[in-house]
Amino acid sequence: MDIQRLSLNQITCENNSLIEVVENCQNEGIDWIAPWRHKIANAGLKESARIIREANLKVSSLCRGGMFPAASKAERLKRIDENRRAIDEAAELGTDVLVLVCGAAPDRDIDGARAMVEEGIEALIPYAEQAGVKLGIEPLHPSFAADRSVIVSLGQANDIAERISSPQVGVVIDVYHVWWDPKLYEEIERSSGHILGFHVNDWCKDAGNPLTSRGMMGDGVIELKRIRHAVEDAGYNGPIEVEILNDKIWEMPCDKTLKLTKERFLELV
Amino acid sequence: MDIQRLSLNQITCENNSLIEVVENCQNEGIDWIAPWRHKIANAGLKESARIIREANLKVSSLCRGGMFPAASKAERLKRIDENRRAIDEAAELGTDVLVLVCGAAPDRDIDGARAMVEEGIEALIPYAEQAGVKLGIEPLHPSFAADRSVIVSLGQANDIAERISSPQVGVVIDVYHVWWDPKLYEEIERSSGHILGFHVNDWCKDAGNPLTSRGMMGDGVIELKRIRHAVEDAGYNGPIEVEILNDKIWEMPCDKTLKLTKERFLELV
Repeated sequence: MDIQRLSLNQITCENNSLIEVVENCQNEGIDWIAPWRHKIANAGLKESARIIREANLKVSSLCRGGMFPAASKAERLKRIDENRRAIDEAAELGTDVLVLVCGAAPDRDIDGARAMVEEGIEALIPYAEQAGVKLGIEPLHPSFAADRSVIVSLGQANDIAERISSPQVGVVIDVYHVWWDPKLYEEIERSSGHILGFHVNDWCKDAGNPLTSRGMMGDGVIELKRIRHAVEDAGYNGPIEVEILNDKIWEMPCDKTLKLTKERFLELV
Repeated sequence: MDIQRLSLNQITCENNSLIEVVENCQNEGIDWIAPWRHKIANAGLKESARIIREANLKVSSLCRGGMFPAASKAERLKRIDENRRAIDEAAELGTDVLVLVCGAAPDRDIDGARAMVEEGIEALIPYAEQAGVKLGIEPLHPSFAADRSVIVSLGQANDIAERISSPQVGVVIDVYHVWWDPKLYEEIERSSGHILGFHVNDWCKDAGNPLTSRGMMGDGVIELKRIRHAVEDAGYNGPIEVEILNDKIWEMPCDKTLKLTKERFLELV
């Protein structure tokens, strides 16, 4: 895959500041970055936007909004407000995509939580439209269903996007979260026209905790090129984020991580 | 739930011998047990059958056959033969259910591996029929797709059972593996008539490695009673195995584990 489409998702270099990551992207000829809100909060929003703009980096998405389900109506409204702040930040950073990690059930009622997710997304649409920001529903791997997202398959994300049927709402496809799905290729086809992002990394065998053992491309079992071709056949030709949460990779110096990322991306994606 | 339906899956007491587990089942008034092949191999097959029979325990299933996909045809045939030995053992132990953990892809070709699973199961049918043993396809949680099972949803297991359409082949439903599935209840309904087993335990939040952090009923987020009712509505009224792989529970003395298991089973399943 062409380097022009590589976007570095900032979590891949979790132990580095925004300015370090931006400088390393420049050194490696990486044109895109996908910041996370906790990093932006550290550096300050306006300062972050300035750092990225002055480096001539484009922003593929902001990670993350979402986390809609909560036990009380007051708390759910508070979370929707928090998502409005995330939309503001996305606009300020110059990206039109806010990635949604939808949230887990506050109790055992998974169906109830799924309804709350859909209500939350719908409630955000007018604000997102005004800001020119799209909402990308990212289904997470079922490993995270209890603590991060009750939306666990691309089929579910497509269902929501189709029901809501707004140009403001689409899906984000991350290979780590969807590679196991027997319906993956038909659901990628179905997401044609509303794919807002594509993330690559790998799933390693016997890796341990799924939260922090995501693999570098090539270190695991995912059919990366096959999925990338399917996503392109569905019409997505935008930036491809490399997003790796891995405690061993986090210990590597940022420049080494970026060199390896680039090498694997060019060869294996 | 009634104690009469409780079956102790032996892996819940991984650090104990068969004879210890059997004695503790007797002490607690548990009528059913589900042994694992590696434990049976330790104790010896005939001796294991004798221990179980003399304690008047019934055997709900033998865990496990499967592991069909392999890189070479010779290795695949060898695995089918190994499954024939598992069928023999099930018959000798007095159960008519062999649980299948279907296996992972030997490479990155997940579709190819899925075809190998189906071929393997079909190849076993005549032998299983003669032995009076049924083959229970147990879909595993997608966390295990890279190393244990490319069959990751009840829908997939139902597809295979329907395509093969033999009274010898059905599905085993374990709440840990399926609770996250947006199509769970429709797939349970669809599995009506070919449910060969039902397993309970729990999924804990932020638990770490999914292989060894399965929870005791009540310690996690699974809607146990709701799923149990759905499985009963689909016509299954057989034994319910408690199957917990958890390194903390494995450190508990066997009698304490069984007392806790019984208490939670009676209250929460």
